[in-house]
Amino acid sequence: MANKQYVYVDHGGTTPVFPAVIESMAHCMAENWGNPSSVHYIGRQANAALNRARAEVASLIGAKPEQIYFTSGGTEADNLAILGMAGARREKGHIITSMVEHKAVLAPCDYLEKIGYAVTYLPVNELGQVSVEDFKRAIRKDTFLATIMMVNNEVGAVMPIKQMAAIAKQNHIVFHTDAVQAVGKIPVNVNDLGVDMLTMSSHKINGPKGAGALFKKNSVHLASRNMGGGQEHNLRGGTENMPGFIGFGEAARITRQIWPTESKRLKEMQDYLIERVLTEIPDTVLNGPRNARAPHNLNFGFKYVDSESLLLQLDAVGISASIGSACNAGGFAHSHVLEAMGAPREISQGSLRITLGMGNSKEQMDYIVEMLKEKVAKLRQNNPHYVPKES
Amino acid sequence: MANKQYVYVDHGGTTPVFPAVIESMAHCMAENWGNPSSVHYIGRQANAALNRARAEVASLIGAKPEQIYFTSGGTEADNLAILGMAGARREKGHIITSMVEHKAVLAPCDYLEKIGYAVTYLPVNELGQVSVEDFKRAIRKDTFLATIMMVNNEVGAVMPIKQMAAIAKQNHIVFHTDAVQAVGKIPVNVNDLGVDMLTMSSHKINGPKGAGALFKKNSVHLASRNMGGGQEHNLRGGTENMPGFIGFGEAARITRQIWPTESKRLKEMQDYLIERVLTEIPDTVLNGPRNARAPHNLNFGFKYVDSESLLLQLDAVGISASIGSACNAGGFAHSHVLEAMGAPREISQGSLRITLGMGNSKEQMDYIVEMLKEKVAKLRQNNPHYVPKES
Repeated sequence: MANKQYVYVDHGGTTPVFPAVIESMAHCMAENWGNPSSVHYIGRQANAALNRARAEVASLIGAKPEQIYFTSGGTEADNLAILGMAGARREKGHIITSMVEHKAVLAPCDYLEKIGYAVTYLPVNELGQVSVEDFKRAIRKDTFLATIMMVNNEVGAVMPIKQMAAIAKQNHIVFHTDAVQAVGKIPVNVNDLGVDMLTMSSHKINGPKGAGALFKKNSVHLASRNMGGGQEHNLRGGTENMPGFIGFGEAARITRQIWPTESKRLKEMQDYLIERVLTEIPDTVLNGPRNARAPHNLNFGFKYVDSESLLLQLDAVGISASIGSACNAGGFAHSHVLEAMGAPREISQGSLRITLGMGNSKEQMDYIVEMLKEKVAKLRQNNPHYVPKES
Repeated sequence: MANKQYVYVDHGGTTPVFPAVIESMAHCMAENWGNPSSVHYIGRQANAALNRARAEVASLIGAKPEQIYFTSGGTEADNLAILGMAGARREKGHIITSMVEHKAVLAPCDYLEKIGYAVTYLPVNELGQVSVEDFKRAIRKDTFLATIMMVNNEVGAVMPIKQMAAIAKQNHIVFHTDAVQAVGKIPVNVNDLGVDMLTMSSHKINGPKGAGALFKKNSVHLASRNMGGGQEHNLRGGTENMPGFIGFGEAARITRQIWPTESKRLKEMQDYLIERVLTEIPDTVLNGPRNARAPHNLNFGFKYVDSESLLLQLDAVGISASIGSACNAGGFAHSHVLEAMGAPREISQGSLRITLGMGNSKEQMDYIVEMLKEKVAKLRQNNPHYVPKES
């Protein structure tokens, strides 16, 4: 592209792919392209590679390989956890989730509500956090599933998963967490967390798109949603996405090695950017918590600014950021997360998500600050409602 | 591996990946790794590449790009066609399918039957073919869907799809065909066939595993099965499998160019192998039709032979074949197809599937014949029930 700099800060939307991941996938397709269900030589080789990838993915979250069920991504894993569990039960019942979940959780919950299940959507506080007390109070006799995200994808709020999972266990409720924005950023260990199911996505940890996984304890029974040849222990039929799962395994292997160092580096850039933006750009707030926040996520509310215009202005100078989630195909949707946080309209309309990752540097943060200052000031000048603060 | 030769003849199970496909995927991941739902620069680039891939896949079957819905593979596409259509209707009703479908069709049909739908499983003749008259007779007032495969995956029988689709249309029944084993082997044009939905798989045409597509006319309404961010025109949520779909597009582009020539070449090898095996190995039959047969498929029944043993003996000398479908994870399952064809036990127990593809040569056919002669004779010698024919 023509821009002098290209600064990608939409890692919450997707991430570039590790070169080693691309290599592992190319090798898989050139040399080890068998069908892992075949009993002959090249099939067995493929199956062995699949098992190695499964072990790598398991290892990243402290799980056993046999607890990992590969899927086509985070959305399918969330759907499988929620709709699969509903499908495996005779009676309908009650589900607890939150108002700020990803659509991959909200959409199946909405669907189940429509066909007669009861769903409680827990509120969040002004920082986007679910309260453990609210969770406890929401439990009913017929609650069979709770699904609460580990890190909110828009504002980075870290949820009290361990505490809620413990309460769920006491009440014999299966606990699922969508950890797509947590894995590789904050500690995620299924034994420490005590969750029964957990969703992961490959393309948020520099792996390929089209691959994800559901961690599931053996005690949890799910109905299959992809019905066919009995792959993934009868839970997901269909020939396995070999290049995708191999690449996911390689991304998991690398992530496990680098994330403790990398997340510190992200945190430093995050702190630096928060400090400079809030200091140097007036009428600006940080959406979400200052501390209990994933280290890659920043979400600023610029008053008197239209965030769509800001996004496009930044895009024109080589900065790829986002408004809320990238996962709403088609682009500009109202943020249900900021709404649930009770953000006033002047904040939610001017909110921009910046999500950091591997390729980012402190120099890029400087460029972002400069461009934000320039573009925000320009957009405010054109806004008739804007009255500059006395300085 | 240690064998002098490696002869892969399980292309019905999966195919090696075209080098150009691997290159296109590596390029996609290295250079064009954006999320196609993102509105910024790299997102738009990704979306443009996705649209080009969709156009290539559409072109291979004479469809329009907007009629192609990408999935994680043939199984998901079949599930989406059947369960998605049931999910979009208020009333239950009647479905027509056949006894010889792939499990990706039979499993969702079985599921629907269990929850109150009526399903007719059409029988086949001794060659594995469905009859148009049977199809016509099976139609009920409440029949809303027919799903009949285009080419049987075990015995290669080509089904009279065009005739059945025409009858379905007269009766206002939506017609779906699983064309996974047909695309790239025999002419597949959705307009000529007159089908409403059609399933394709990438990894059967030298594309990557983990990608497939459902062709669907705009008039057919399906309920989404992967609920989330609204991708694929709200029919399949979740970030698109970019490397997989790009690779599928490239495989479709190459297949469109080469298949008329390649299918003739396959047919020649098929004819040669049938001729030699039936002539040179006594007590052997060809399962499935001699003529109305996809050019890559051979299925022999060797009397007095246990096909599992034969498969492993061939594997040991570098020949990868299969027993029936490779898609039954875990290996050796009884063939529901041969059973539906009324094959006697002495045939079905000794049946071997050989499916040809790009890398195969006539020299390899000679090697297969030599090894088959040797191994079949050896296994028969060890079978106390075997009485050699007087020569």
